[in-house]
Amino acid sequence: MNLCRKTSGLLIIGNEILSGKTIDINSNFFCRELSNFGIDVKEISVVSDEKKKIIRKVREFSENYDYVFTSGGIGPTHDDITNVSMATAFNRKLTYNKKAKEILSIHYEGNELTKARLKMTLLPENIQLISNPVSVAPGYIIKNVHVFPGVPSILKVMLVEFLNYRFKKNIKPQKTISTTLPEGVIGEFIEKIQIQNKNVDIGSYPYFKNNNFGVSLVIKSDDSFLLEKVSDEIFQYLFLNNGNPKYFNVF
Amino acid sequence: MNLCRKTSGLLIIGNEILSGKTIDINSNFFCRELSNFGIDVKEISVVSDEKKKIIRKVREFSENYDYVFTSGGIGPTHDDITNVSMATAFNRKLTYNKKAKEILSIHYEGNELTKARLKMTLLPENIQLISNPVSVAPGYIIKNVHVFPGVPSILKVMLVEFLNYRFKKNIKPQKTISTTLPEGVIGEFIEKIQIQNKNVDIGSYPYFKNNNFGVSLVIKSDDSFLLEKVSDEIFQYLFLNNGNPKYFNVF
Repeated sequence: MNLCRKTSGLLIIGNEILSGKTIDINSNFFCRELSNFGIDVKEISVVSDEKKKIIRKVREFSENYDYVFTSGGIGPTHDDITNVSMATAFNRKLTYNKKAKEILSIHYEGNELTKARLKMTLLPENIQLISNPVSVAPGYIIKNVHVFPGVPSILKVMLVEFLNYRFKKNIKPQKTISTTLPEGVIGEFIEKIQIQNKNVDIGSYPYFKNNNFGVSLVIKSDDSFLLEKVSDEIFQYLFLNNGNPKYFNVF
Repeated sequence: MNLCRKTSGLLIIGNEILSGKTIDINSNFFCRELSNFGIDVKEISVVSDEKKKIIRKVREFSENYDYVFTSGGIGPTHDDITNVSMATAFNRKLTYNKKAKEILSIHYEGNELTKARLKMTLLPENIQLISNPVSVAPGYIIKNVHVFPGVPSILKVMLVEFLNYRFKKNIKPQKTISTTLPEGVIGEFIEKIQIQNKNVDIGSYPYFKNNNFGVSLVIKSDDSFLLEKVSDEIFQYLFLNNGNPKYFNVF
C-alpha cells in the first residue's frame, strides 16, 4: 500500500443512467484521471434523483474515503437536487452564492437570468467553487466532496483543469503481460505468485481479439523492483508453458 | 407507482472497472433489459474484488430490493471471489456443485479439468443454476440474488435467455419531447407540471447534436391517459414559446 496514494468514492447521480437511457461514461473518465493523480477509486455508486439516497450515500462515502467526487444534478431543472442534498448532508444553509451569481450574470448578459438559471447559484454555504470554462455554472468543494456536473463534455474539461491545478501527477507503476493460455490453465500458478507477493496486485482479464482468446495479466505495485521481479517470473512461466507471453506496457 | 413493477440493485464486481482499465458496459445492458421486463434498477454499486465489501453490499441490496443482479468474479482465477462471498453473505456452505461439474466435464472433454477450472463449480449450497450457453460455467440464483459473469458477450446472452424464460415483458409507457429551448428557460414551467402530476416522472436531459443545443424531456407513467395529457400540455407550452417541440417515441 503506497501511503502517498489516496482513496475516493464516486457518486453518480441520475435517473437517466438507471433507466438505461444514458450510458455512464463519466465513471470511467473519473477512474482513469484520478488514478493518474494518485487517487484510487474504491467504490462507485449510481443513485436516482432522490434526496434521501444522495444524502445517505455522500455521508457514507465522505466518512469512508479521502475524497468523494459526484457528477450530475446541478443544472437548472426540478430533477437537479444535488445542491440541496449536499447542504442537508453537511448541515449547511443554502444561499445564493455571490460569486456564482456574478459569473452567471456576465455569461447570460442580454438573456434573462431566469429563476431556473438562478437555481444553479443556490449553493451550500462555505464552499470552494470549481471553475467551469464551458457552460459557466460552477462545481464546488464541500468538506472532502467535489461536486461536478453530469454532462460528460463539460465534466471532462472541468475535471482535468481542476486536477492539474490541485494535485500532482502520480501514476502507479504497472505492467501488462498477454498470453494465449486460458485462465483455467494458468489460474493456479498466478494464485501462488499472488499469495507469495502481497505488495503486488495481479489482475487477470480474459479477452477475445482478432478471433483469438487470451488473457491479459495486469501487474501493479508501488515497488518497481518487485514489479519487475514478479512480472519476469510470470513471463518466464508462460514462456516455458507455450503461452506466447508478450509484454504490453501502458506507461 | 405501478405495483406490478419490481425493484432491483446491480452489484458490479471488479478492480478493472475501478482502475479505469475497463468501461462498465454491463450496467447499461442490465438497466435496459431489466426495465423491459418490469424490473427497475434503483441503485448500482461497483466494488473491488474484496470479500468484505461484496458481502456488505449484497446483503444490503438483498434486503432493500426485490432482486439483486451481480456481474463479475465467477471465473477460475484468484481474483474471482464472488462465489465465496455469496456463500458467506447468506450463510451457505461452499461445495462442488454436481450439475455444474458435469456440465464442465463435458465441455472440457479431452482437456484437463484443472484445479482452476474446477473452482468455477465450487458454489454455495441450495442454489438454482443459470445456464451459460457460451462458455458453459453457469451463473446462479441465491436467495433473491442473480449471479452473472462479467464478460459482456457472455453476460448478454445469458441475461436475455434468463429474463425471457423467467419474466414477462413489461415496458413502462413513455414519451420523449425534444425542444430547442434551454433548461434555464423551460425549467420553471416543467417543475410546475411535475408538482401538479405526481404519477408522472419527467426527466430533463440537455443534449448537443448536429451543432445545436437542446433538451430532451422524457415523460413516463403507468397511467397512459395521464401520460398523453401531460405530454400534450408540455408540447403545447413549448410550441407557443417557439421551442420547436418534436415528439420522439421510443415505443
